[in-house]
Amino acid sequence: MMRAAIRILGIDPGLRRTGWGVIDVEGNRLAYVACGSVSSDERDAMGARLVAIHDGLARVIGDFSPAEAAVESTFVNKDASATLKLGQARGVALLVPALAGLSVAEYAPNLVKKTIVGAGHAEKDQIRMMIGMLLPKATPQTHDAADALAIAVCHAHHRTSAVIRATLAKAAEG
Amino acid sequence: MMRAAIRILGIDPGLRRTGWGVIDVEGNRLAYVACGSVSSDERDAMGARLVAIHDGLARVIGDFSPAEAAVESTFVNKDASATLKLGQARGVALLVPALAGLSVAEYAPNLVKKTIVGAGHAEKDQIRMMIGMLLPKATPQTHDAADALAIAVCHAHHRTSAVIRATLAKAAEG
Repeated sequence: MMRAAIRILGIDPGLRRTGWGVIDVEGNRLAYVACGSVSSDERDAMGARLVAIHDGLARVIGDFSPAEAAVESTFVNKDASATLKLGQARGVALLVPALAGLSVAEYAPNLVKKTIVGAGHAEKDQIRMMIGMLLPKATPQTHDAADALAIAVCHAHHRTSAVIRATLAKAAEG
Repeated sequence: MMRAAIRILGIDPGLRRTGWGVIDVEGNRLAYVACGSVSSDERDAMGARLVAIHDGLARVIGDFSPAEAAVESTFVNKDASATLKLGQARGVALLVPALAGLSVAEYAPNLVKKTIVGAGHAEKDQIRMMIGMLLPKATPQTHDAADALAIAVCHAHHRTSAVIRATLAKAAEG
């Protein structure tokens, strides 16, 4: 049976640095495509920083043509000002793939960790090690890029049920 | 002495409804141009909701060609999840004018109220009444649109010092 590979873009949003990772999934097989991160200059105005994230992610989508995107739903900490800034970066990270016509799934950090490491409270180094085993060709230079690959792998595991849920919701509506 | 009018776009960001208001400022004179709001459907996925805000604001910029934009820096409340959602809408509200090449200023809600009403803790109805006096031709249909006009007026009052600050900061950098 022939099955086309689905290309997935994972995004770990952050104002200072947004990680991205691209993988192909074909049935149970995962293949590494590329990863990296997009930075914004702290000295720039907020608008310019968000444009940097927008342009970087738009370039990744243009270069690799993913079919689906997955974004980590940010961990909410107690500093409201930091949460707001993260929200702004996350808004851009959700917007850019949606503008390009990709479906955009969201995953909680604990589900990403549980899917990759088997525990909801894994350390960043454990994530990186598991990514090295799941995607041997991947050599992420930063934790953000490794996390973005982990989010893409999480989506590869959960996307079928996500697609079914969306289809059922649509059918129920109309 | 001839002085060209500067067209200003004020934005009051919100995920469910984002208000916008356009005014012209020429020296001390203010003139109402247009106002309204952009809605997103709660039943849609987050990506689609942010695309609706993006498209609505991009259309306003295309229709009215403002030269500068001003966005209210969101009031941070205690609910982190609400703050995050507001941050996402705000990220798009800051991004769209920046992508169009406009300068984007940010103003705290208290400064907007103080500039318009003379007190930092004005009620929404007071804002609306003062907007009626400052911009007699404006008939905002929603509080969001009235607030967006207030933000535009606030920027009209503070833009010169904002431009000076930005120029000085740039000069200091080298």
